[in-house]
Amino acid sequence: MKPDEAEVVYQGRLIGVTVERWGDHEREIVEHRGAVVIVAVDGEGHVALVRQLREAVRRPLLELPAGTLEPGEEPFQAAKRELQEETGLTGGEWTEVLGFFTTPGFCRERMTLFFAEGVEPGEARPDPDERLEQVRWPLGEVASRLSELEDAKTILGLLLYLHRAKVSPL
Amino acid sequence: MKPDEAEVVYQGRLIGVTVERWGDHEREIVEHRGAVVIVAVDGEGHVALVRQLREAVRRPLLELPAGTLEPGEEPFQAAKRELQEETGLTGGEWTEVLGFFTTPGFCRERMTLFFAEGVEPGEARPDPDERLEQVRWPLGEVASRLSELEDAKTILGLLLYLHRAKVSPL
Repeated sequence: MKPDEAEVVYQGRLIGVTVERWGDHEREIVEHRGAVVIVAVDGEGHVALVRQLREAVRRPLLELPAGTLEPGEEPFQAAKRELQEETGLTGGEWTEVLGFFTTPGFCRERMTLFFAEGVEPGEARPDPDERLEQVRWPLGEVASRLSELEDAKTILGLLLYLHRAKVSPL
Repeated sequence: MKPDEAEVVYQGRLIGVTVERWGDHEREIVEHRGAVVIVAVDGEGHVALVRQLREAVRRPLLELPAGTLEPGEEPFQAAKRELQEETGLTGGEWTEVLGFFTTPGFCRERMTLFFAEGVEPGEARPDPDERLEQVRWPLGEVASRLSELEDAKTILGLLLYLHRAKVSPL
């Protein structure tokens, strides 16, 4: 399954844009290496969130720890690295939950969701251009606080965690 | 809250790319008009899905009806238009549920989620470059079939619908 023609119209640092022709129609497609997102819960039943300025949407957002794959990196490696960098949390029992496309209408980004349970505290080491505020929510408050969230992967990840915890099978 | 400098590096038909400088760092940002997604449930308790080829990810995906805002269009208008075009469904009781950012790390797209309950069948009129297969799932099967889905907005929308139906308050 591939296009009749493809032309790279922009090549940036993290993203690029390709215009593909499929028969009689064209698609503008954002190139992306893929990403990971983590629901990390510590031994006291608190889930880890980070608040950071999202320049693209002009305000700070409260999100699950997440990040883009480095070139050649596997999702599981990336997830452990991002969780430690952004929150300092390490260890715990990890589960690869599912992979999904974030915006398949115009972007190739595939994101892998992990649950990490029983994680241990440590020192965060965010990238120099990330200023992150650490936030912990007790799991019991998540369902009543979903309206404080505006980030798709965060709402999806937390809902799926609640759903798995209460209802089985998924 | 705005960048020190901004340069449009690509302007396409549906998306564009702007590079913004914020202090000492740069952000590549995908411009997007915004979008809507609808959980539409008919009188028999079936939720409407559409399967379509997603060229960006090289395969067909099963998704909730959704689409991009036309210039100047309000989300509620767009949601009714897209639902009718893609599935033929009209009428019903509508609720605007929440707005979220699909990929706030690199894109401005904001998506608004609607629930439409008690919708009535009609004739679909998809865009000429969309080939859509209509799919209906009984609500009772959704929880056990989430692993068939790979689209973020669809997983999020259906989980939130199940969550609202079973657990209140949200």
